[in-house]
Amino acid sequence: MMAAKLKTAVLGATGYSGLELTRLLGRHPRVDSPPLFRRDINGAKRENPAEIFPHIAGNGHSPVEPFSWSRLQERGVELLFLATPHEVSRELVPEAIARGLRVIDLSGAWRLRQHEHRAVYGFQDADASAAEALTEQAVYGLPELNGDRIPSASLVANPGCYATSVILALAPLLSADLVDRDRGIISDSKSGVSGAGKEPTSRTHFVSVADNLSAYSVFGHRHTGEILEQLKLEACQLIFTPHLLPIPRGILSTIYVYLNREMTAAEVESCFRDFYGSKRWVRVFAASNLPQITFSLHTNYCDLGFCLAADGRRLVLVSCLDNLLKGAAGQAVQNMNLMYGWSEEEGLA
Amino acid sequence: MMAAKLKTAVLGATGYSGLELTRLLGRHPRVDSPPLFRRDINGAKRENPAEIFPHIAGNGHSPVEPFSWSRLQERGVELLFLATPHEVSRELVPEAIARGLRVIDLSGAWRLRQHEHRAVYGFQDADASAAEALTEQAVYGLPELNGDRIPSASLVANPGCYATSVILALAPLLSADLVDRDRGIISDSKSGVSGAGKEPTSRTHFVSVADNLSAYSVFGHRHTGEILEQLKLEACQLIFTPHLLPIPRGILSTIYVYLNREMTAAEVESCFRDFYGSKRWVRVFAASNLPQITFSLHTNYCDLGFCLAADGRRLVLVSCLDNLLKGAAGQAVQNMNLMYGWSEEEGLA
Amino acid sequence: MMAAKLKTAVLGATGYSGLELTRLLGRHPRVDSPPLFRRDINGAKRENPAEIFPHIAGNGHSPVEPFSWSRLQERGVELLFLATPHEVSRELVPEAIARGLRVIDLSGAWRLRQHEHRAVYGFQDADASAAEALTEQAVYGLPELNGDRIPSASLVANPGCYATSVILALAPLLSADLVDRDRGIISDSKSGVSGAGKEPTSRTHFVSVADNLSAYSVFGHRHTGEILEQLKLEACQLIFTPHLLPIPRGILSTIYVYLNREMTAAEVESCFRDFYGSKRWVRVFAASNLPQITFSLHTNYCDLGFCLAADGRRLVLVSCLDNLLKGAAGQAVQNMNLMYGWSEEEGLA
Amino acid sequence: MMAAKLKTAVLGATGYSGLELTRLLGRHPRVDSPPLFRRDINGAKRENPAEIFPHIAGNGHSPVEPFSWSRLQERGVELLFLATPHEVSRELVPEAIARGLRVIDLSGAWRLRQHEHRAVYGFQDADASAAEALTEQAVYGLPELNGDRIPSASLVANPGCYATSVILALAPLLSADLVDRDRGIISDSKSGVSGAGKEPTSRTHFVSVADNLSAYSVFGHRHTGEILEQLKLEACQLIFTPHLLPIPRGILSTIYVYLNREMTAAEVESCFRDFYGSKRWVRVFAASNLPQITFSLHTNYCDLGFCLAADGRRLVLVSCLDNLLKGAAGQAVQNMNLMYGWSEEEGLA
Repeated sequence: MMAAKLKTAVLGATGYSGLELTRLLGRHPRVDSPPLFRRDINGAKRENPAEIFPHIAGNGHSPVEPFSWSRLQERGVELLFLATPHEVSRELVPEAIARGLRVIDLSGAWRLRQHEHRAVYGFQDADASAAEALTEQAVYGLPELNGDRIPSASLVANPGCYATSVILALAPLLSADLVDRDRGIISDSKSGVSGAGKEPTSRTHFVSVADNLSAYSVFGHRHTGEILEQLKLEACQLIFTPHLLPIPRGILSTIYVYLNREMTAAEVESCFRDFYGSKRWVRVFAASNLPQITFSLHTNYCDLGFCLAADGRRLVLVSCLDNLLKGAAGQAVQNMNLMYGWSEEEGLA
Repeated sequence: MMAAKLKTAVLGATGYSGLELTRLLGRHPRVDSPPLFRRDINGAKRENPAEIFPHIAGNGHSPVEPFSWSRLQERGVELLFLATPHEVSRELVPEAIARGLRVIDLSGAWRLRQHEHRAVYGFQDADASAAEALTEQAVYGLPELNGDRIPSASLVANPGCYATSVILALAPLLSADLVDRDRGIISDSKSGVSGAGKEPTSRTHFVSVADNLSAYSVFGHRHTGEILEQLKLEACQLIFTPHLLPIPRGILSTIYVYLNREMTAAEVESCFRDFYGSKRWVRVFAASNLPQITFSLHTNYCDLGFCLAADGRRLVLVSCLDNLLKGAAGQAVQNMNLMYGWSEEEGLA
Repeated sequence: MMAAKLKTAVLGATGYSGLELTRLLGRHPRVDSPPLFRRDINGAKRENPAEIFPHIAGNGHSPVEPFSWSRLQERGVELLFLATPHEVSRELVPEAIARGLRVIDLSGAWRLRQHEHRAVYGFQDADASAAEALTEQAVYGLPELNGDRIPSASLVANPGCYATSVILALAPLLSADLVDRDRGIISDSKSGVSGAGKEPTSRTHFVSVADNLSAYSVFGHRHTGEILEQLKLEACQLIFTPHLLPIPRGILSTIYVYLNREMTAAEVESCFRDFYGSKRWVRVFAASNLPQITFSLHTNYCDLGFCLAADGRRLVLVSCLDNLLKGAAGQAVQNMNLMYGWSEEEGLA
Repeated sequence: MMAAKLKTAVLGATGYSGLELTRLLGRHPRVDSPPLFRRDINGAKRENPAEIFPHIAGNGHSPVEPFSWSRLQERGVELLFLATPHEVSRELVPEAIARGLRVIDLSGAWRLRQHEHRAVYGFQDADASAAEALTEQAVYGLPELNGDRIPSASLVANPGCYATSVILALAPLLSADLVDRDRGIISDSKSGVSGAGKEPTSRTHFVSVADNLSAYSVFGHRHTGEILEQLKLEACQLIFTPHLLPIPRGILSTIYVYLNREMTAAEVESCFRDFYGSKRWVRVFAASNLPQITFSLHTNYCDLGFCLAADGRRLVLVSCLDNLLKGAAGQAVQNMNLMYGWSEEEGLA
């Protein structure tokens, strides 16, 4: 007998991640087509997704409704996806958990444990101690690292796109204690424009981005804290520099580490293969074969490759992913699969 | 003895055309570096151009000042360039002319004579009869067509970018009465995004434009009236369809006409060469050699080419230009050159 | 009981269409993962697809083998896909049919019936009368038009990408005899670069294409004949102008027709809806809502929209599709689905 | 009295740098319009530049002639520009110098002194000792560093585009001995596609580059040796990683250094301003204001900016330039200006 399908809902379905998530859930074999909600800040009228993304018009998507707890209850929703600004997530998640819902939050609201990392968000919680307790309870939803804790989690904090690309590249070598942390790790990361959100600004205007490249938020990007916490690094051990690429989607991080002992390329490759051997959504490339952004676009893969200098010490890692899939909506579905005991590839292959 | 340099000013220096104009005037050998003005609508604070376009920072550009008539007078300005929205031009030009200034207006405010064409702008004039008189007096600033009337003009209405590309392509054949007007003329035009202005909107967001092409304002674009008036066509004789290209600048118009008698390619080419023989800023390509957008970028050229069908009747014209130069600021400088009796290429070569 | 899966093969798997086709067949529920073949002209060494497209490396694709009839037989292949140059298709298809295989050919080799249209290919057939007989037998594989003849076809000539976009846009109105053919139909079509093939040339160099737009093959493109034959038009009734867009994939055709009687927008929309009502892979947009290229990318849809002038006579149609899917590999799979009695959406949703 | 104009010639005028150089020389006030030469390797027919770059057609450029010493002599050429592959430069320069010509070579043939750096080019010199002597005599043409030796040079080796961007960014801090060299310097550099040359390859195909980013030649790029030699660094002290950007032109290098003492941002900025104070073609940005690629496009500037971490030790430098101007042809003209005692900005403003 076929099991009943899971009832989910998406709040924030009109952003890039929310749209991608809606698309993925709509074709997931174990999930009912989700109702879509919007949260009108100050009563601002928002369009339905078919107006914003006319290519989904007429494909049977439900319209986007104003969010209300009673609507969630009527629909029997068990799992709530939030693809909202972090302030909204910070406000709604406590009540969602209190009402017995499970939550996958795509914002930065619940990813960080340490106060110094969280400061950059400037959270203003109605009930600070409840928020603190939820922070403790939240699981950082990187399946390749926290796959043991995600299945039982009530609140999964879906990782940042940059953070996913950097953490997955560094975790194997750091876990095996092969990196000279004190010499410094550098991640020079480059992202397509959808990572900057759907809000039109002078920065995302086509003419500002086309034919251009720019670095931004140097020494101050919000994803830095996630990387430090998940990899147990000190702030002084990492420089993370994001850049805005003239492409719609995709991330490539070029990461520089110094090994603490001389290694061969074969040993480095083994370290990666041992760590990710059985993982469905990480592809390890052979030594000196580097991934490119297009290889992972429209997939849930994080692709990892490297080049080792002749001295066996200086190592360049390259990590690529689609910021809307493995960097957001795809990873959220992967987390859902783990939370409900399904194969990690369900709805993503 | 060197003649004193002309004193000009630019109002609206922070848009794409205004910036390009400022750059051109700054290096023009017969013009003083112009003061730059902004008009704060409702007191809205606008940035100085070096903040908006940091690449011009530190290059000696004067800051952008709030506009006032007294400042113009203090500076001894003789010629005022308006790179403002049409409402602002419509409001300010009457007083500018009354004060004895000459004006080159880059907006659509004064380009159209016929009421039915002007309706699309919805002008609300404080003094309707003064506006009507000014409309009569304004010269449509397309030097290749109206070169005899521009030198003595007080008010030059600088043409629209699309209109320039279409009118210059069609004028030779229509002048020679070689076109079957009643069979219909079609201009399928494509423009880079700077043509849509600097205002960030969901339409100009990088992700909306990249990897995409879209038609817009079909049967309703504001430049249609200019084309009809300058070429003396009936509305039913022309279809003009603009498209938004994923490039920052440049226009290509593919124009379809039916000749009213069988011609050879050599005859068609002669028609163009006879018409534009001595013109500095139009390049006529040999038969079957078509211009491409990049050929005219960063120049003031309008490039014209064509292919004639074997039947000697069906003709495809291709017209290319840089929408910020021949389509806006470059043409404005060309008009200034004519108004002051200088060579058409001064400051543009 | 589950039916045995269909055994297919792909010759020419290393081009853009061949790769896309391989990807589609690899996930089609009713088809065995196909062996991939290459035809080494003059023994030229070709790479395996994972070398050319490293993003498919390690995903279980079989390597590309040199083509031989005996290998096809060993593998029990019933249906052969050719994604080869037209000369190769012209050479191999007669033997394939003689050996009892069914063939879907993605090249232009078998699409055209009329000699004057075929001349542009310059076919040199070993056995001219056999080739003539095959031409008669071949079915033009546009499912929305020839859906009745494809199921029993031995040889399906998969349509050209441009031709698909133009024919699908025009068929409803021409079928209903609503078009003034003699006034002339114009298709101004624009395609991404993958339509020009994978061969590196100065024309497909990034620097030639980026920031640019160019028209090409005016009055001489090979797809013109397909459009004329399928729509039963005279050569003098159509102008088809292709342009090269600075995007990797996607086609938009802007098509101009004059109606032979005054119509309302609702009537035009009805004409399209009546014609395509039950078709899975055509989306008709509401009047004045125009499709854009990105709407159909990575799907098998052909999207159709229109704007009608106030006079009820002048009509602008816009047709969009992904040139590698509905314009090539996706349509080939759709044809296969029809040939084997499966739902048209199998493997394409 | 006006001095006679300098007679120059360009060999290799059909590549991207050669074309840009031809354009610059054509408008330089002190230089005669140069004859253009090509060197037909194995008699291969090359096109004239107007065929390759139709946008320069009809603008009075002389056609490209086959290269010969006697033609140079007839034309009275004093200064020869080589925009040729390094093998050609290596072969021709000894004779050019022997004939009394001065040479500016845009290739990598004469940039490197140390054998271990030169090995990557695999030079095969007819007369090894003459080549060695010339290598000693050649001046590395970076005006901001070697401005004292360029005026009297017979042979100027024009720097690599990447090398220019990296050396100019690092020279001030290294000269002032402020960098912890042993902790390692990293340059993560990104270039537009014109840097990869005009040869069509699968790597420069539009579809390979668009929507993509890739790292290449990690630990093995030819410009590494130039950087090491000019900055007097050991190989182990630098990692230089080039990337291919989906833009036609421009370079951005993000450079990571650790200072050997704690500094303030004001001190770092002073170090740059002191070093480049009087230099015409370097722009130093205020602390935390970073240049972007578009700021320097179509100019001869190298733009430099930086961000300093709160610890006063970790420093991120950003360096931008146009690879065809300050990275090639513009710098060559700047070198010519120095060689003939003219202002560095002649012909470049």
